[in-house]
Amino acid sequence: MFSLTVCDHIMIAHSFHGAEFGPAQRLHGATFAVEAEFRAPRLDHHNLLIDIGLAKTELRRILDAVDYRNLDDLPILAGQNTTTEYMAFHIFGQLAAACRTGVMGAGGKAVTGLKVLLRESPLAWAAYEGAVG
Amino acid sequence: MFSLTVCDHIMIAHSFHGAEFGPAQRLHGATFAVEAEFRAPRLDHHNLLIDIGLAKTELRRILDAVDYRNLDDLPILAGQNTTTEYMAFHIFGQLAAACRTGVMGAGGKAVTGLKVLLRESPLAWAAYEGAVG
Amino acid sequence: MFSLTVCDHIMIAHSFHGAEFGPAQRLHGATFAVEAEFRAPRLDHHNLLIDIGLAKTELRRILDAVDYRNLDDLPILAGQNTTTEYMAFHIFGQLAAACRTGVMGAGGKAVTGLKVLLRESPLAWAAYEGAVG
Amino acid sequence: MFSLTVCDHIMIAHSFHGAEFGPAQRLHGATFAVEAEFRAPRLDHHNLLIDIGLAKTELRRILDAVDYRNLDDLPILAGQNTTTEYMAFHIFGQLAAACRTGVMGAGGKAVTGLKVLLRESPLAWAAYEGAVG
Amino acid sequence: MFSLTVCDHIMIAHSFHGAEFGPAQRLHGATFAVEAEFRAPRLDHHNLLIDIGLAKTELRRILDAVDYRNLDDLPILAGQNTTTEYMAFHIFGQLAAACRTGVMGAGGKAVTGLKVLLRESPLAWAAYEGAVG
Amino acid sequence: MFSLTVCDHIMIAHSFHGAEFGPAQRLHGATFAVEAEFRAPRLDHHNLLIDIGLAKTELRRILDAVDYRNLDDLPILAGQNTTTEYMAFHIFGQLAAACRTGVMGAGGKAVTGLKVLLRESPLAWAAYEGAVG
Repeated sequence: MFSLTVCDHIMIAHSFHGAEFGPAQRLHGATFAVEAEFRAPRLDHHNLLIDIGLAKTELRRILDAVDYRNLDDLPILAGQNTTTEYMAFHIFGQLAAACRTGVMGAGGKAVTGLKVLLRESPLAWAAYEGAVG
Repeated sequence: MFSLTVCDHIMIAHSFHGAEFGPAQRLHGATFAVEAEFRAPRLDHHNLLIDIGLAKTELRRILDAVDYRNLDDLPILAGQNTTTEYMAFHIFGQLAAACRTGVMGAGGKAVTGLKVLLRESPLAWAAYEGAVG
Repeated sequence: MFSLTVCDHIMIAHSFHGAEFGPAQRLHGATFAVEAEFRAPRLDHHNLLIDIGLAKTELRRILDAVDYRNLDDLPILAGQNTTTEYMAFHIFGQLAAACRTGVMGAGGKAVTGLKVLLRESPLAWAAYEGAVG
Repeated sequence: MFSLTVCDHIMIAHSFHGAEFGPAQRLHGATFAVEAEFRAPRLDHHNLLIDIGLAKTELRRILDAVDYRNLDDLPILAGQNTTTEYMAFHIFGQLAAACRTGVMGAGGKAVTGLKVLLRESPLAWAAYEGAVG
Repeated sequence: MFSLTVCDHIMIAHSFHGAEFGPAQRLHGATFAVEAEFRAPRLDHHNLLIDIGLAKTELRRILDAVDYRNLDDLPILAGQNTTTEYMAFHIFGQLAAACRTGVMGAGGKAVTGLKVLLRESPLAWAAYEGAVG
Repeated sequence: MFSLTVCDHIMIAHSFHGAEFGPAQRLHGATFAVEAEFRAPRLDHHNLLIDIGLAKTELRRILDAVDYRNLDDLPILAGQNTTTEYMAFHIFGQLAAACRTGVMGAGGKAVTGLKVLLRESPLAWAAYEGAVG
């Protein structure tokens, strides 16, 4: 199995609901370093898994909807605690859809698995991975 | 599949038995940067995989038993070459047990997989992963 | 010249004032990985520059005042754009004062220079450094 | 499942064929930081997955064939676009063969899986993983 | 003293002249991760050292002249061994000039010191630093 | 000012004397990732600050005297608490001497400053820097 990973980051504000969160119930924020790993069993005739330029552009387009935002205000995230694990799942969903629609070319359509990992600090990160297509 | 990883580190002394180990047969030591990755197929109603505070506390409690120690002197490790791969397995066993007993809450009981990775230097690391529960 | 560096991190929300900031004028946030570098021309009789436990504790105490907060709401930062470079300066001031007051012991009093560096993302960071004492 | 990872790096020149590559069609180069992850379900009687010295030596021997080279000139890579994902696959093939032949000892023969990951920049990397033996 | 650092990277081919270089006399290549550190004794009224957007754009513009190139072919580098330390100096010169000309705004004109650091591998890097203005 | 940095690492055991050290008074150990930064105001006619091969070889030779050792047993360190800051100073002294003796060639003799930094964990490091020659 091949994989290709591209990275980017977002800087967001948010707050959590539930006593379990302690001080994180207050409005605070995070830099999420985002790693998107695309997986496929074979490469195309150029020896590419996916066009890295298209992958970076699409990842950036998806991140622009949440970057430099207070996640508490975004309708698409309403009612959700925007934990690192949930945000990895949220971005996974959008990136998996982009693979299927063809916006990332034939390479994106050939992707069979995807992992989105978000680093919230040097000491903690979360991810969601699943099949695509 | 979701995953959440928390990090900590220990600083230990030890020596190895067997000519294969060369100079590492002498008493020496290591900083092990420890990464504990918890896996589960779904999040709880707070969008949490596991309470990160409980996870860090439990990992620290397990590491306290070996931190700032000469591993050659610990009864629990008697007769073992405490290689990086073995120590990953040792910590895995204790952390997996903690998931099952409920000390890390309902989130810990819902964990289905665990990976413990120990970095011994910038250029080498080892891990043990397996099912839990 | 000797130096000793300890690290920690904070997760904050804030917004900036001024058209130069573009989308960062919106309420957003950041993880700041904080590196505090203490400098001194000599070590004490234990070969320590500063007691690392006291240094970590004091750095944490200073960071607790801003961690998991919206910096826009803090009186101590009122009227300031809380840029990465300014926050480095702000924490520098508090940590330098702690060196002088003796809360970090004789080692802290012997510190002659200090650098506080804040990483806002994998691709950008800022610092303030100056003399102490 | 156990895993052990060793790291090294190479510095190569190459060019790509295909309009998709844009400016990377020009002769350029890369530092590939190489991570070789060996996997096995159990350790030997020394608690080793593989002799780390043999693993490093064999990885270095394989990398020497491409290190400080223009990949466009190497017969073994003729007709291939030497993308990061392809080079991961290429090195995987040679390292997997070395496991099977016994050059890395009994530990190498007991390896059941292998992953070779190449970091081309701080923001992008690729890997190939598969069964061995 | 304040400092602000922004990062980018380039992927280049080159070769060295001189027996001291051993195998690096062959055409090979490198990913240079580039860190540009701007220094100034005070911040502007927005609490900025320099407009980070302008700094990134100008650094990218300077890097575009060498990125995805064989440095052996560039007239501006003719007759030079393009070692990591020399390339740091070369980029320093162009970035220092950009500070002085005002292309990075008033913040750039107020820069008093600059350091350009290039990482050639995980285990080696070089830098050039000097006064500006 | 130019600088060139090369990295290596050692794995040592030791213990500390003094109640201030708490649990670190027990025999324990550390991986020290070592960064040696050589500084000089100009490059040689090959555009080199120092021969990187000679620098790596000499750093390794110096580290071999302490690597895979219990520092408590070494006569050269007798009576010293081998803190991270002291070990940086110790290695600095040996590497500075090597610059002066010419074992690192004309480049080593032209070195005017040196910094040795030892990372003891992901969250703490120490350094010693000074003039050479």
